[in-house]
Amino acid sequence: MAEPPALTLPWGRIERRLRQLLPARAVVARRPELLTYDSDGLTLHRHEPPLVVLPETTDQVAAVLRLCQDEGVPFVARGSGTGLSGGAVAEQESLLVVTSRMRSVLALDLENQRITVQPGVINSWVTRAVAGDGFYYAPDPSSQVVCSIGGNVAENAGGVHCLKYGVTSNHVLELEVVLPDGRITRLGGSLAEMPGLDLRGVFIGSEGTLGIATAITLRLLPQPQTVQVLLADFPSMEAAGEAVRLVTEAGVLPAGMEIMDNFTINAVDDLFGCDEYPRDAAAVLLIELDGRLEEVSAAAERAMELCHLAGARSLRRAESEADRALLWKGRKSAFAAVGRITPTYYVQDGVVPRSALPRVLAAIEELSRRYGLPVANVFHAGDGNLHPLILYNASDVDVQERVQALGADILRLCIDAGGSITGEHGVGADKRCYMDWMFSPEDLGTMQLVRNAFDPEGRANPGKLFPTPRSCGESARRARSVRVQVNGMEDVTPGVPAAAGLDPSLPEASLSSEAIEVF
Amino acid sequence: MAEPPALTLPWGRIERRLRQLLPARAVVARRPELLTYDSDGLTLHRHEPPLVVLPETTDQVAAVLRLCQDEGVPFVARGSGTGLSGGAVAEQESLLVVTSRMRSVLALDLENQRITVQPGVINSWVTRAVAGDGFYYAPDPSSQVVCSIGGNVAENAGGVHCLKYGVTSNHVLELEVVLPDGRITRLGGSLAEMPGLDLRGVFIGSEGTLGIATAITLRLLPQPQTVQVLLADFPSMEAAGEAVRLVTEAGVLPAGMEIMDNFTINAVDDLFGCDEYPRDAAAVLLIELDGRLEEVSAAAERAMELCHLAGARSLRRAESEADRALLWKGRKSAFAAVGRITPTYYVQDGVVPRSALPRVLAAIEELSRRYGLPVANVFHAGDGNLHPLILYNASDVDVQERVQALGADILRLCIDAGGSITGEHGVGADKRCYMDWMFSPEDLGTMQLVRNAFDPEGRANPGKLFPTPRSCGESARRARSVRVQVNGMEDVTPGVPAAAGLDPSLPEASLSSEAIEVF
Repeated sequence: MAEPPALTLPWGRIERRLRQLLPARAVVARRPELLTYDSDGLTLHRHEPPLVVLPETTDQVAAVLRLCQDEGVPFVARGSGTGLSGGAVAEQESLLVVTSRMRSVLALDLENQRITVQPGVINSWVTRAVAGDGFYYAPDPSSQVVCSIGGNVAENAGGVHCLKYGVTSNHVLELEVVLPDGRITRLGGSLAEMPGLDLRGVFIGSEGTLGIATAITLRLLPQPQTVQVLLADFPSMEAAGEAVRLVTEAGVLPAGMEIMDNFTINAVDDLFGCDEYPRDAAAVLLIELDGRLEEVSAAAERAMELCHLAGARSLRRAESEADRALLWKGRKSAFAAVGRITPTYYVQDGVVPRSALPRVLAAIEELSRRYGLPVANVFHAGDGNLHPLILYNASDVDVQERVQALGADILRLCIDAGGSITGEHGVGADKRCYMDWMFSPEDLGTMQLVRNAFDPEGRANPGKLFPTPRSCGESARRARSVRVQVNGMEDVTPGVPAAAGLDPSLPEASLSSEAIEVF
Repeated sequence: MAEPPALTLPWGRIERRLRQLLPARAVVARRPELLTYDSDGLTLHRHEPPLVVLPETTDQVAAVLRLCQDEGVPFVARGSGTGLSGGAVAEQESLLVVTSRMRSVLALDLENQRITVQPGVINSWVTRAVAGDGFYYAPDPSSQVVCSIGGNVAENAGGVHCLKYGVTSNHVLELEVVLPDGRITRLGGSLAEMPGLDLRGVFIGSEGTLGIATAITLRLLPQPQTVQVLLADFPSMEAAGEAVRLVTEAGVLPAGMEIMDNFTINAVDDLFGCDEYPRDAAAVLLIELDGRLEEVSAAAERAMELCHLAGARSLRRAESEADRALLWKGRKSAFAAVGRITPTYYVQDGVVPRSALPRVLAAIEELSRRYGLPVANVFHAGDGNLHPLILYNASDVDVQERVQALGADILRLCIDAGGSITGEHGVGADKRCYMDWMFSPEDLGTMQLVRNAFDPEGRANPGKLFPTPRSCGESARRARSVRVQVNGMEDVTPGVPAAAGLDPSLPEASLSSEAIEVF
């Protein structure tokens, strides 16, 4: 156990004061226990917190934040710790406020399809609580059996079914929030649209920089009458992309459309020791359709026609729950399967407009060759959300730098194609230095104005989300940002490879296979 | 022409400086022309602006707002002036900034289903610009042939088809905004989800209190392959409400579901001199379904079964465009039809959870009897958005007070049922004094924090949206707010009739039939 860094705040006094406010079990100050909280899913980004509290009620959270205000203590909110951007880590000297003992359902109103939960409630528990009555909660990050609703709100979490149903922000009606000074406020309301300023949307996805949500009212949906899943395999990634385009343009709206590339197909088949997916396919496309039986059947027929038209070699259709589970099994195990054949991988999370998918994927392949690092592609094709997995061996010389440079180049491709540096994993510590690739100083300045309105002293998750001179260097990265010239790619601007311009002050970013089950 | 109020700002100098910045035709200072801008759709709420500018570019808007900053001048943004809450009126001594010469399409990207327009572009022009390519813009306020996209953004406009497709905030990807100090910033981005704080959502529906949008990127949808419309008539309002509930619970998602009551049915039949709708029906329900042919046909069959189950007396189904237009004709003319049989009416805009519709409608009927003022009901049943029309003769003694009191009581019913004081018409000047019925001082305070971040001097649409001591009296209305006891209504709290507690400082609120075509 390495020595923790030297501390400058009076943590002894802070701990004593916290113990006066909270039950004994709510304060964690012993080192072995503190180490549990030293990273999130991005495990190489480790910072041991000086002190952890686990409040159980809104009033306790408010008391803790009033104390933080009084003592000038920064704080970091944390749910289940499954995040992948280093967002829930006490990187600066901060109190870690963990919500995992806030696991009550506060109110259930099935008539109006609403449920109010504490932030530590696990995503999949919400559906479990209402499934017997025919409802479910739509956003379904792959970590849904462990991740918390509070974390989902902080990251504006997505999932496989967000193509049709939208991300977390489309499903949160109201938030009770404790502001950084300990005041309690409510954002949004019981209706989808409320008068006044819509602060609910600002808070969702703010990654802990505005306060801590202590009660969250979610919209419930009636369970679809029918679900069908199609699996199509294609001789080229372009053909799979074309199928996605045709299905979308035909006005068919699947619940989800997922693509796996040849590398991933073989990794999955190796894992299960069978040929579940055709090993020589360049890509497989999974399409899930839900709704009323007649509608789903009609949509499935149409989607199958369009896959054929795009050049699908074979098609399978699953209507029973068992058959559907079989088709999904490979996709759901894809990260685990890739993790099995590589000591370590780094999962990138970028977004491109659907129309740019084929050329961005080709460009990633070219970059992969150039860097000598294999890249596996598994992605939410319907909404252009890529998850390239960069495979590497952490013991190789200089590999961290190359992995980071390749990750950055992939994000640069996404931006150049009109996309985004993150689809659903958030910015956190990992991507803050790319924020000025997407936003001008004026735009980031406007965000800071609002951040300062909620948190004038900058004590809520300090240093995260926004680029700072301390974390990203004095000069704007924007000015030095580079573009990657890739053969066959349109619309690229000549430049120096990003590796040459890599900022040594960037946080280390790599993901061990420990996190493979959380996507 | 009454004398304008005495002015305290140096308008002569301001006009001279504006003329140096803008083309001659962009500055309006002559009284007859200024009077054009003295109200919005809420025509009895009149304030003549001291000066009007009509900029044509973002740079001109920025130059105007920098001058306003320099001179300490408040400003009010205005689109087509079709609003119904007195929001786009220079109530305080302010410069009126009219966007109706900003009518260019700035960019069109059909591949990614996006269009970027200036704020003065008319709502229906967007669909007209892309219809030939098979696309449309979904939000469709009934004023869509005259209202502007900028105004839609300010009010977060809805429409008949928002049940399925959501309101304006679901369809705006990016905003270029001139802040009150003249700086230009971009909110949101080209993708549905962007990293960082989602300020796009805060701006949409902020009713001009944060700045002026000068370029708006909208999401386009592919035109549905098929549209079908059903018309069902019911022997009671409860039965019509039950049909809405059954259709929703069955997982059928119509594009829109609209109900008209017996009063409105007869007004419409009188207008057209025919029996288009059964005159003895307590309510008619219109259901529009769109999507792929097989899906729509299946959904229509199911919806018809459920209407029968709820007690529909007769059902009609329209598949051709001509037949659909015929079924919609009455609904689209409902306000005009009611306007024909009353000298004046005041349209209220409240929201209730769908499950509360029957009892709130019964309570409105009871209130109508008590006040001796007829109320016609036409509403977006699918999303619980009521539009009660209070009919009156402006020459009756004390009628304004009674109309306002009845309007307030109806809103109180909506709030008590868990609803909202406005669904789509906004707060503006008309409803600001009811905001603290919905929000606690802490919640309004949080909104003010954010408003101040954008507009520290409070010069953007001053006095609107938020309750102020000046506009609503020193004490919180919340404390004095009253509840209405109505026979047969559940969950009501005994209290004094609202008329007794009516605040004499409330703005006058009444709507002449001039505005009948804009819903």
